[in-house]
Amino acid sequence: MVSPKTARDESSNNAAAAGPLSPDELRRMDAYWRASNYLSVGQIYLLDNPLLKEPLKREHVKPRLLGHWGTSPGLNMLYVHLNRVIRRDDLNMIYIIGPGHGGPSLVAHAYLEGTYSEVYPDISQDAQGMKRLFKQFSFPGGIPSHVAPETPGSIHEGGELGYALSHAYGAAFDNPDLIVACVVGDGEAETGPLATGWHGNKFLNPARDGSVLPILHLNGYKIANPSFLARIPRGELQKFFEGMGYAPLFVEGHEPADVHQQLARALDTALAAIRRISTDARENGNLKRPIWPMIVFRTPKGWTCPAEIDGKKCEDYWRSHQVPMGEMDKPEHIRVLEGWMKSYRPDELFDGDGRLKPELAELAPTGRRRMSDNPHANGGLLMRALKMPDFRDYAVAVPSPGESTAESARVMGTYLRDVMKLNLKARNFRLFSPDENNSNRWQDVLQATDRCFMAEIYPEDDHLSSEGRVMEVLSEHQCQGWLEGYLLTGRHGFFSCYEAFIHIVDSMFNQHAKWLKVCNEIPWRRPIASLNYFLSSHVWRQDHNGFSHQDPGFIDHVVNKKADVIRVYLPPDANTLLSVTDHCLRSRNYVNVIVAGKQRAPQWLTMDQAVKHCSEGLGIWEWASNDKGAEPDVVMACCGDVPTLETLAAVELLREHLPDLKVRVLNVVNLMKLQPASAHPHGLADRDFDALFTKDKPIIFAFHGYPWLIHRLTYRRTNHANLHVRGYKEEGTTTTPFDMAVLNELDRFHLVEAVIDRLPQLGARAAYFKQAMREKLIEHRQYIEEYGDDMPSIRAWQWGGKGAAAKPQESSTAADNV
Amino acid sequence: MVSPKTARDESSNNAAAAGPLSPDELRRMDAYWRASNYLSVGQIYLLDNPLLKEPLKREHVKPRLLGHWGTSPGLNMLYVHLNRVIRRDDLNMIYIIGPGHGGPSLVAHAYLEGTYSEVYPDISQDAQGMKRLFKQFSFPGGIPSHVAPETPGSIHEGGELGYALSHAYGAAFDNPDLIVACVVGDGEAETGPLATGWHGNKFLNPARDGSVLPILHLNGYKIANPSFLARIPRGELQKFFEGMGYAPLFVEGHEPADVHQQLARALDTALAAIRRISTDARENGNLKRPIWPMIVFRTPKGWTCPAEIDGKKCEDYWRSHQVPMGEMDKPEHIRVLEGWMKSYRPDELFDGDGRLKPELAELAPTGRRRMSDNPHANGGLLMRALKMPDFRDYAVAVPSPGESTAESARVMGTYLRDVMKLNLKARNFRLFSPDENNSNRWQDVLQATDRCFMAEIYPEDDHLSSEGRVMEVLSEHQCQGWLEGYLLTGRHGFFSCYEAFIHIVDSMFNQHAKWLKVCNEIPWRRPIASLNYFLSSHVWRQDHNGFSHQDPGFIDHVVNKKADVIRVYLPPDANTLLSVTDHCLRSRNYVNVIVAGKQRAPQWLTMDQAVKHCSEGLGIWEWASNDKGAEPDVVMACCGDVPTLETLAAVELLREHLPDLKVRVLNVVNLMKLQPASAHPHGLADRDFDALFTKDKPIIFAFHGYPWLIHRLTYRRTNHANLHVRGYKEEGTTTTPFDMAVLNELDRFHLVEAVIDRLPQLGARAAYFKQAMREKLIEHRQYIEEYGDDMPSIRAWQWGGKGAAAKPQESSTAADNV
Repeated sequence: MVSPKTARDESSNNAAAAGPLSPDELRRMDAYWRASNYLSVGQIYLLDNPLLKEPLKREHVKPRLLGHWGTSPGLNMLYVHLNRVIRRDDLNMIYIIGPGHGGPSLVAHAYLEGTYSEVYPDISQDAQGMKRLFKQFSFPGGIPSHVAPETPGSIHEGGELGYALSHAYGAAFDNPDLIVACVVGDGEAETGPLATGWHGNKFLNPARDGSVLPILHLNGYKIANPSFLARIPRGELQKFFEGMGYAPLFVEGHEPADVHQQLARALDTALAAIRRISTDARENGNLKRPIWPMIVFRTPKGWTCPAEIDGKKCEDYWRSHQVPMGEMDKPEHIRVLEGWMKSYRPDELFDGDGRLKPELAELAPTGRRRMSDNPHANGGLLMRALKMPDFRDYAVAVPSPGESTAESARVMGTYLRDVMKLNLKARNFRLFSPDENNSNRWQDVLQATDRCFMAEIYPEDDHLSSEGRVMEVLSEHQCQGWLEGYLLTGRHGFFSCYEAFIHIVDSMFNQHAKWLKVCNEIPWRRPIASLNYFLSSHVWRQDHNGFSHQDPGFIDHVVNKKADVIRVYLPPDANTLLSVTDHCLRSRNYVNVIVAGKQRAPQWLTMDQAVKHCSEGLGIWEWASNDKGAEPDVVMACCGDVPTLETLAAVELLREHLPDLKVRVLNVVNLMKLQPASAHPHGLADRDFDALFTKDKPIIFAFHGYPWLIHRLTYRRTNHANLHVRGYKEEGTTTTPFDMAVLNELDRFHLVEAVIDRLPQLGARAAYFKQAMREKLIEHRQYIEEYGDDMPSIRAWQWGGKGAAAKPQESSTAADNV
Repeated sequence: MVSPKTARDESSNNAAAAGPLSPDELRRMDAYWRASNYLSVGQIYLLDNPLLKEPLKREHVKPRLLGHWGTSPGLNMLYVHLNRVIRRDDLNMIYIIGPGHGGPSLVAHAYLEGTYSEVYPDISQDAQGMKRLFKQFSFPGGIPSHVAPETPGSIHEGGELGYALSHAYGAAFDNPDLIVACVVGDGEAETGPLATGWHGNKFLNPARDGSVLPILHLNGYKIANPSFLARIPRGELQKFFEGMGYAPLFVEGHEPADVHQQLARALDTALAAIRRISTDARENGNLKRPIWPMIVFRTPKGWTCPAEIDGKKCEDYWRSHQVPMGEMDKPEHIRVLEGWMKSYRPDELFDGDGRLKPELAELAPTGRRRMSDNPHANGGLLMRALKMPDFRDYAVAVPSPGESTAESARVMGTYLRDVMKLNLKARNFRLFSPDENNSNRWQDVLQATDRCFMAEIYPEDDHLSSEGRVMEVLSEHQCQGWLEGYLLTGRHGFFSCYEAFIHIVDSMFNQHAKWLKVCNEIPWRRPIASLNYFLSSHVWRQDHNGFSHQDPGFIDHVVNKKADVIRVYLPPDANTLLSVTDHCLRSRNYVNVIVAGKQRAPQWLTMDQAVKHCSEGLGIWEWASNDKGAEPDVVMACCGDVPTLETLAAVELLREHLPDLKVRVLNVVNLMKLQPASAHPHGLADRDFDALFTKDKPIIFAFHGYPWLIHRLTYRRTNHANLHVRGYKEEGTTTTPFDMAVLNELDRFHLVEAVIDRLPQLGARAAYFKQAMREKLIEHRQYIEEYGDDMPSIRAWQWGGKGAAAKPQESSTAADNV
């Protein structure tokens, strides 16, 4: 009934005879493949009786059957063949599989080549170990069903589909000797991120980078549907890949012997092409974008499982996607399973004690050449700290608060330029951006390096070269995926993005944060550099683009993940931004989110003050407060550059018009300080929080993002009932910068109103003053609708009352706002 | 100095003479193009002097220059040429432009063809109106810089790039007479969603659907970089499109006369091909996937602006992307602008009063054939309500709470099957899913229709046909984009998705919610059907896939958007799910999010109870409470199916072991009820909230999602200080269903502990009972690690104490868990 195909069945096949594999090689490779298939099925089904030495019974089978078979036999065959070329050519190779739900496959190979037992000694290479290997899979207290951090050799879970190629290219950058074999499932190939992922070849420099060998695993089916790439004519498929700059090699069949030979041939061709391309680039200096090889591997889904189960098509059909057969209380299903597993002839593969036979074991590479033990897949082993200039050297002079102005992002860019310079030799630092590097004001980085581009370059192009280390492609998915691949293999980077559009990678962030969380629980996973986001062109200053570009909610999204791996900073000026940047580049295993503006804006802190402020994370700005030695009447808290500016302007109005009012100004740069200490490692102790925010005074909190996030972080604090937050409440359009604050009632006039409303004891003078604020708002509205720009008194405002006399800041121009 | 090219300059050009356009046609079309270019520049720059009747001065120019010129001239030329074929062939066509930042272009054309003045009478077709047209653009109190809801004829903002083609295909589905001309920017073409968007042609049926004419606007540059598609050999580009099933037509040049003729020819060819394809499908029944035409339109970025400004290359370069020239205080820049605008020869285009000359005006289509007035771009005009069966007819019998079980999602599927049936003729209802329709248990829908597939179909394929109305592609981006396009053109749909992976479209949701918010402020925009999400395979039951598939945070993301457009439901069983589904399908202009499980689970409410519960949104479950006529000692609140189950199990334990304890059980199905009435239209008044949740008793709230969301929604409520929330705290792996609850301390035993901890007055008996709960948890852990499944007492549990005797629910099998 069950009759999986094996190479021996076809050994007389002509194709087989003609192939590059000798009969003995073919026989042994096929046996190794069967061994990995056997172990894959065993993991999904068996609790006990791993070698099937006794007749299979119900109690040998797991009560709950979890996992994915469909992709596993294909992944297994590819693994065996990659092993052949690794051994033959002493290759440095890692294996990224998009269909990461094929977890049993990678675990099986790590086990067969010994790594698994080295990392998890309990899972020994004998019958007892095999039994444990089977049981632990998708089992409580065991390992997950997918390729996961627990899987040696993995940097890519593949639980959420779409990022295999981006991770592969990211891993290959600056790793000239590395070949990244990257399996793309034909389901995954339908996703957007994967569809643009193929174009990574426009950014891969064959001289300085390694190579990516994409393998489209065209097994035809997804969970319950055919994949469309499996249902277009071969000619169309060929053009599709040629059109993306690849030379596709087709391996197609279902007879193992034939497919073994085809695959061996295709791999020989592909590796020869890769060698030729690398040599040509490195020895002949040919940096023209090469046509890279790729493989289309069209084999049956669920290959070698029963063709039919209960009369329904299984092999080569979507029914084999997950667990091909359940209902194991049926005795006939037990027989089907036994027959299926025995069809791999385990007695030919394992000795009596469950050890892989030596003639098979020697097919695997050894030591660090094993894909399951390649150090690039445990990047922390290879990571070296960046050389860092002293960020204090880039300080903006701040003779007194608000006296000087700067573009914070641009100052950060000068610092990153020199980080880049210092590490050019080490080749371990890149910047990533979706065509926004200059728009986010990091243009000075281009003094140290170019933007990377491997497509055609024209003479008039601006800082564009095959040597560039600024990676710009208009795909947040690619930027994120490349950076993740780069970090996971032990390097460093920064992702600069418009604040609103970082939501495009919300889900990728989720997966990376989850990966880091689990890595923190695995002793052999070494720490890697943090994933650093710089979010600029933020909600308050999307002057050119308006409502669609206004969304500060990425922070809300981020703080849902484990506190251990999350950090969020909103530096109010350039010097605090420098300090935070330095900190993030030195940190490990975090996701750091920095939100700061790019527009010219007042500077508040000297470098010494900035360093102190950042190390405390939040604090009273005494130079702006007048509550010295006493309890304040009101706390004016602020977080983010625009809210800080508006708060200070409000404070100035209050001090001018209500000089007796005691105002405490408090700035937050490290958002996680607001959480209770029990909720986040950075969380402030309640006592300290109370000392800063008081136990009973009104707090007017001007926040960069959605106001309720502050409530979410502080609802357990003593004085929460008196906390009133202003932030972005989803009002916006194309309007003036100050009007954005007004629309969301975060501006100075509304903040003053909010204070007065909460202090009824202030009486008539305050009521009069409040009326004046109302009139100011009307004046503002009339002015902007007539002149299209903010009132000079707003543009010219400076802290310290010097504003009225100063000349208005220049009107915005294109150059200012790109 | 300024010398934009126009057709007249080249009228002797051979190519021009040879083309399909007569010299007079060419002359007039070029003039119309110049008129739209003139208006585009005017919108970006001018405050006054719209016809340049007096010498241009600084005060005629806006103080802040905002907008995007680069893409506009190309969009303008395409518009003029589409008008030609619309008029000639009486076509029903809409225009979707990916580079939506080219807002000036669409506004200019809506103005030239009269629609703009019809909708906004203030912007009249004369000098005064033109002045207002110019001033209002990107101006406070005016209109946004992008194509936006305010723009007549638009359904696609294009602010966030990537979705033009998905929207276009969604609009074309079931609109057999509609042609969607869809411009794809070459920047946008680098994004993932757009890259897979091309494959919409595998799902477009030429007999029943309309057509999409993609036009790649290859102008070479993004904000600051070349686009890679502009820098690969033409042969590669051609194969790229052929490989995706298109026949590309190339229009390439920079001499207007030549390009006019090429474009006219290409459009004639493309439309003939579309006609041929439609006729062949409709008259000859040829439903083989056709090779659709598309156009590659390679023209200079910023075409016709000054070639250089201040000695720097501008036209045909990235510098023309936004505002090509700022610093308008320089008198020489005023001269450049004047020369640039005058180069369009406005006196030839507009009469003395600023009216477009009749010989040009007649080039535009009239009435609803104008792309700016096509009703498909204001879908509410065309929308007809769905025919709906009575959802009560699908009720699950619930003799007593918890006595029967059902798979809620599957019950919903039977209802949707009949909604589908009733509307098959109207052709206005489709379901969308990323290969998860059956996995999310909507398989019964396939009794009424198939899955849609236009690639090759095999005999063994399962419910797959060109007629299917279930849209399955493994791309959440495509599903969302198609559905948006379908809804915005006046139809209805539902998106079924794994809960965790709906984050993939976080940012698309943002844009749609923003679009709806603005539409609500525009009287001429008619309401459309709501965007309905069904999120299943949720965080608590990702048995096969584990941690990467566990994320309930989409709700957190959604509630950041305007309360007016957001609804969130977590029905605890099948009958409540039916009621909510019915409600969502009848609603308009919302985004509805429904989260519910697919696994077999106890049912709580009869249909009558369910209808009442859903219409109230939350309420006390008296049959589960024992606080009748008195204040409870504790409120056990729950929201979501798994939390409801665990809460009831905890309540039963409490009632058994602490019979004197008065417990109130409260279930929440409409999450927005928790917010204050001031924050959401559904928000409960404080008095009602207090009556339900008490003013001072402990509340143990078991929540489906991240626990802090409940705090965020309720922090202003009287009894918030006593609110203790349990939810998903980012702990998970591949484990048993009950263990997922245990890992996150949401299970019955932990809930009982939480109650006891908050009621110290319960004394010694409670302390003993708490210890018993601890032991239960240890027993659970030991059991699952040995047997891999939950304890029979857990699996067999039933409300009402009948559980101990009942037979355990069957073990999970593959069929159960796909």
